[in-house]
Amino acid sequence: MRQLYELAAADETLRFSPYCWRVKLALAHKNLAYETVPWHFTDKAAIAFSGQDKVPVLVDGGQVITDSQAIAEYLDEVYPHEPALFGDATAQALTLFIKNWVEIVLHPAIAHVILPDVHAHLSPADQAYFRESRERRFGRTLEDIAQNRPAAEAALHTALAPFHAVLRQQNFVSGAAPAYADHIMFGALQWACLCTRTALLEPHDPVRRWMHAVLATYGLETSVN
Amino acid sequence: MRQLYELAAADETLRFSPYCWRVKLALAHKNLAYETVPWHFTDKAAIAFSGQDKVPVLVDGGQVITDSQAIAEYLDEVYPHEPALFGDATAQALTLFIKNWVEIVLHPAIAHVILPDVHAHLSPADQAYFRESRERRFGRTLEDIAQNRPAAEAALHTALAPFHAVLRQQNFVSGAAPAYADHIMFGALQWACLCTRTALLEPHDPVRRWMHAVLATYGLETSVN
Repeated sequence: MRQLYELAAADETLRFSPYCWRVKLALAHKNLAYETVPWHFTDKAAIAFSGQDKVPVLVDGGQVITDSQAIAEYLDEVYPHEPALFGDATAQALTLFIKNWVEIVLHPAIAHVILPDVHAHLSPADQAYFRESRERRFGRTLEDIAQNRPAAEAALHTALAPFHAVLRQQNFVSGAAPAYADHIMFGALQWACLCTRTALLEPHDPVRRWMHAVLATYGLETSVN
Repeated sequence: MRQLYELAAADETLRFSPYCWRVKLALAHKNLAYETVPWHFTDKAAIAFSGQDKVPVLVDGGQVITDSQAIAEYLDEVYPHEPALFGDATAQALTLFIKNWVEIVLHPAIAHVILPDVHAHLSPADQAYFRESRERRFGRTLEDIAQNRPAAEAALHTALAPFHAVLRQQNFVSGAAPAYADHIMFGALQWACLCTRTALLEPHDPVRRWMHAVLATYGLETSVN
């Protein structure tokens, strides 16, 4: 069976990694069955076979593929008869703008809201690793970040404005049906919604409706917080 | 002859409208000849025949088309044998994210740098209209905006980060060759570069290289400031 090594919280039913969600939706999009192997930040030894120290790691027959983008490109190449993740060459190129926007703008905006909540979900060994690495990356303590949450929530809503505008004009980032650009965007928002201790989206926020529609497309039952 | 009503400065050789640049590049992309009719903000009567009061206005045979996006869609529909502006349905949908990002994030970031410079380029009648409408839209005087320029330039460079990341990975927003997503992005940056009184891009900025490459694709000689 195809295996996906996936980041897990102390409660292993909680799987919040934005990059792992991209791959789970991509596998669903391509109708490919898989089982997940829960993995924790400090389980470096468990994925040493992949030659690096991050998830997602996909084991597909004899192939080991790492990095969500490389996995998506691999899936489109190896399973060309399943629905395309990217569309034509122009669509694949445009997806790269959305990927960069999500990673450079949206992920940090979300991180400044939820990092303390993510920390609270982790096992003690992972908490120490997470605090040290994230405080170094953002140059602030988790307590500082927690204190600034109202401003960070306002900044997150401002950052989402272009996405809100798109959802007023079409059902998905990729048009009438979701594709990999939606998977990238979904990963970010699912990470936010699964980890936050207070709801980030109003009940009628179009982003929430879109999240349900993405999951429904693939028959996934996971709820949206 | 096909006619494009295009915004002009007091010096009518200066054409800086981001929306008109989108259409000029789209016409070049589709190998369609046209002549421009210079138009000024206060020439509302000259385009009354279009049923609205903004440029670009394209007159193509008996057709009058307004709004840059509607014009681009019209060109792809009416001239399907010329190179496509959008690509497949997914690419067309993804272009909408870039359009919204440019209009909601990039245009205001540029406006906060160059509005006073744009004002200086206009004829006296247009200056009065421009000052009144822009000060109302942004809630600040042009003098306030001018004073804040160093901070606005820093914010503009931060806003451009996702685009810089894309240009490290591929030559154009649309991949190996420019398409309408590049035209949208180019319009914004050409507006900035044509109006600013001090250079906004370093000589080796990849954005400057990309601007030259877009123009070179269509054999356009206009220089990039």
